[in-house]
Amino acid sequence: MEIDKTVADKYLKTYMEEDQAGSAELIAFPKSTEEVQDFMKEAKQAGKKVVTVGSQTGLTSATYPQDNAWLISLEKMDKILGLDDKTLTLNVQAGVTLAQFREFLAETPYFYAPDPGNKNASIGGTAATNAGGMRAISYGVTRDNIRGFDVVLANGEKLHAGSLNKKDATAYDLKDLFIGTEGTLGIMTEFQLKILPRPAFEKSIIMGFPSLDGVANAIYEVVKSPVQPVALELLEESGIRYSEEFINKKMPEVKGEAFLLTTVAENSADGLDFQVQAIEQLGQLAGAVEVRELSETEAVAMWEIRDNILNGITNRGDWKMYDPVVPNHEFTNLVVEGKRLGEIYNVQTGFFGHAGDGNIHICVLRDDQNDQEWADTKKAYENDLFPYVAEKGGLLSAEHGVGLEKKEYLHYFKDESYMQVLKSIKQALDPDNMLNPGKVFSLD
Amino acid sequence: MEIDKTVADKYLKTYMEEDQAGSAELIAFPKSTEEVQDFMKEAKQAGKKVVTVGSQTGLTSATYPQDNAWLISLEKMDKILGLDDKTLTLNVQAGVTLAQFREFLAETPYFYAPDPGNKNASIGGTAATNAGGMRAISYGVTRDNIRGFDVVLANGEKLHAGSLNKKDATAYDLKDLFIGTEGTLGIMTEFQLKILPRPAFEKSIIMGFPSLDGVANAIYEVVKSPVQPVALELLEESGIRYSEEFINKKMPEVKGEAFLLTTVAENSADGLDFQVQAIEQLGQLAGAVEVRELSETEAVAMWEIRDNILNGITNRGDWKMYDPVVPNHEFTNLVVEGKRLGEIYNVQTGFFGHAGDGNIHICVLRDDQNDQEWADTKKAYENDLFPYVAEKGGLLSAEHGVGLEKKEYLHYFKDESYMQVLKSIKQALDPDNMLNPGKVFSLD
Repeated sequence: MEIDKTVADKYLKTYMEEDQAGSAELIAFPKSTEEVQDFMKEAKQAGKKVVTVGSQTGLTSATYPQDNAWLISLEKMDKILGLDDKTLTLNVQAGVTLAQFREFLAETPYFYAPDPGNKNASIGGTAATNAGGMRAISYGVTRDNIRGFDVVLANGEKLHAGSLNKKDATAYDLKDLFIGTEGTLGIMTEFQLKILPRPAFEKSIIMGFPSLDGVANAIYEVVKSPVQPVALELLEESGIRYSEEFINKKMPEVKGEAFLLTTVAENSADGLDFQVQAIEQLGQLAGAVEVRELSETEAVAMWEIRDNILNGITNRGDWKMYDPVVPNHEFTNLVVEGKRLGEIYNVQTGFFGHAGDGNIHICVLRDDQNDQEWADTKKAYENDLFPYVAEKGGLLSAEHGVGLEKKEYLHYFKDESYMQVLKSIKQALDPDNMLNPGKVFSLD
Repeated sequence: MEIDKTVADKYLKTYMEEDQAGSAELIAFPKSTEEVQDFMKEAKQAGKKVVTVGSQTGLTSATYPQDNAWLISLEKMDKILGLDDKTLTLNVQAGVTLAQFREFLAETPYFYAPDPGNKNASIGGTAATNAGGMRAISYGVTRDNIRGFDVVLANGEKLHAGSLNKKDATAYDLKDLFIGTEGTLGIMTEFQLKILPRPAFEKSIIMGFPSLDGVANAIYEVVKSPVQPVALELLEESGIRYSEEFINKKMPEVKGEAFLLTTVAENSADGLDFQVQAIEQLGQLAGAVEVRELSETEAVAMWEIRDNILNGITNRGDWKMYDPVVPNHEFTNLVVEGKRLGEIYNVQTGFFGHAGDGNIHICVLRDDQNDQEWADTKKAYENDLFPYVAEKGGLLSAEHGVGLEKKEYLHYFKDESYMQVLKSIKQALDPDNMLNPGKVFSLD
């Protein structure tokens, strides 16, 4: 196994901690589950902490190395092991990126449903955070689309969790326990992913509303209806502005101040027509000032606006992004509150996200704040935002995880007994606290 | 809280251990989560083991009381607490039965998707076993339809797991950990269930094939296609015979020797037509000798046959039922193997189940065997059946759980490290091994 005693700079920094390098003694690049097991056994003997690294696209500093940890990068476990047509399963190693197997699947009649924004993310990383994305409203999140995996434990033993079966009442469910634990309970090395037949027909529709309030009604009507769009995205002035500025194009003209961009997919043209009509009726019922079925050209233009919001924000300099989720009916209220807090703290904000599943991305922009101001602004914003989200029945993180960045706010969302159980599970599975210590929560 | 120091006979026996009464010191009937907490604290102080009882419909002796345990029955926690239209959530206490909230929901535009056979099951029981049923192919199992719950731990503390949100990357997932643990990790007391808008249109179709082999092809084609039936059930000679005998009616005439009974549901008449046509084409492609869209009267008659298979088997005397699951393409092979084993051990068998999700119910019938013969037959059958299921990538239990009845076979399906992790979690959460000890697995 390739082991590097000089740890390259890029592994010492994370997306969110760019200025401050962490510390690591070495980095290993295993190519198989067995090599991961060997590595863990050595680390245990050496009494070292272990941080697992994927493709470094995380947003919570969950892979930030501390205290001369040993790093283990799964980026060379990059093999697509094959598609099993009989069970509709794609077998991949943990380091394979979404882009990589998306390209592979393009040649087949199948697709993998989860659609996190950053296609350079590795499947291992998306499993470690239980990543979400655009299509969760219809197909669920990463958790729902992983059939099983091999995971290496702190003691170097491995186990297989999950199966290719559609039902399971055979003892405790460890599959769902490991998913979303951000490298703190084990190292997932090889996955069996659920793939689905690609729907034959697809259509995008834009709905314009006089205000965010109107959007709220429409979300409520759509979610409650039997129509199941595969995407239902919010477009509102801040996001549109940043995106237009970045791509230097105007959004196709639609009446209204706030918009829902939705895609429906179906297996028959007739079924698709029904869905389009139903969405149109629901939009009008909810007070849309315009509802328009998009031509292919318009759809491309509209999705280009949606897909470039974050690029537009990034183009403006440093930012911090939050990914709370609330029950659907609180979605636009959360946007309003996020804007209000921006005004209070005199900071620019940008909003985009998944109206269909209640998950909004809130970005605050640094602009010309100095280091101290920027740190203070973020802290003040977070201290108001998260209690609000908790009060509305929401959660701290919908899809990015907790990592280092959000752990101090976890107590708003999980009661003391919940945290005690988490800690006791961590101690039971990793008694020496070797695996990614201090991420998600601290043991003390 | 009502506490009975004379434990009624029905609580000392389980569905599968009718002849042998267990032992219990008392039984409590709490009406609230707080009373469950009080009970657990007292039991802890008294150093007692605790067995949670629901509506006694389990099939694995998971509620069989041993060693003068304290029983806690949740049957008086029978309140429907309300429907939240905003989040499509039904709030119920654990003792509410499927029949009870089915009746409640009939007055609303919504339904609860999981559909386990026995409608007298309590929601708590279905959560403890992660029950499945007929509609899992389309809507998933109990796990997928529970948003959250309160659970009381061995130490009397309670925690809330899950939420009303559609995405969750906020620390470890305890919701899925507790579901399916058969009362060994905690006592779930109050649930938030996902409800769905009822589809507007529904149609049943029957497909007849010359043999089980043909059925296998059709399952494969349907599952791989974009068509998503809400039910796909096997009907074959043994099941049909027992059912016909019991209801004293013939199955509507259809060509073929083995059959698939399927229901499609849609929100538009056109969408439904597409699904019906697609199923018909797939059936013919797979070699069906007849494919017929059923009239309403025929559909009722056909489902009456399906729904009375187990009644027919019960009518023949004692039986033992297994609920293995295999990947779809092994489903009919498992039926063939189950029949072969019946011939080898000279015992009558009956088969029915969920072709769409790979879960077959295999019944062996006692007939006139004496106690010793019957015990020997079951053991011999199991010792051949379960290794076969494991070899095909299947699981010991799809929907009934492990309980006492199947724990000796768990090792075929879960590797040693998997079992070690289960045990360490059990010890972490229940250090005195108070909760339903010895069920699912033994700690020694």
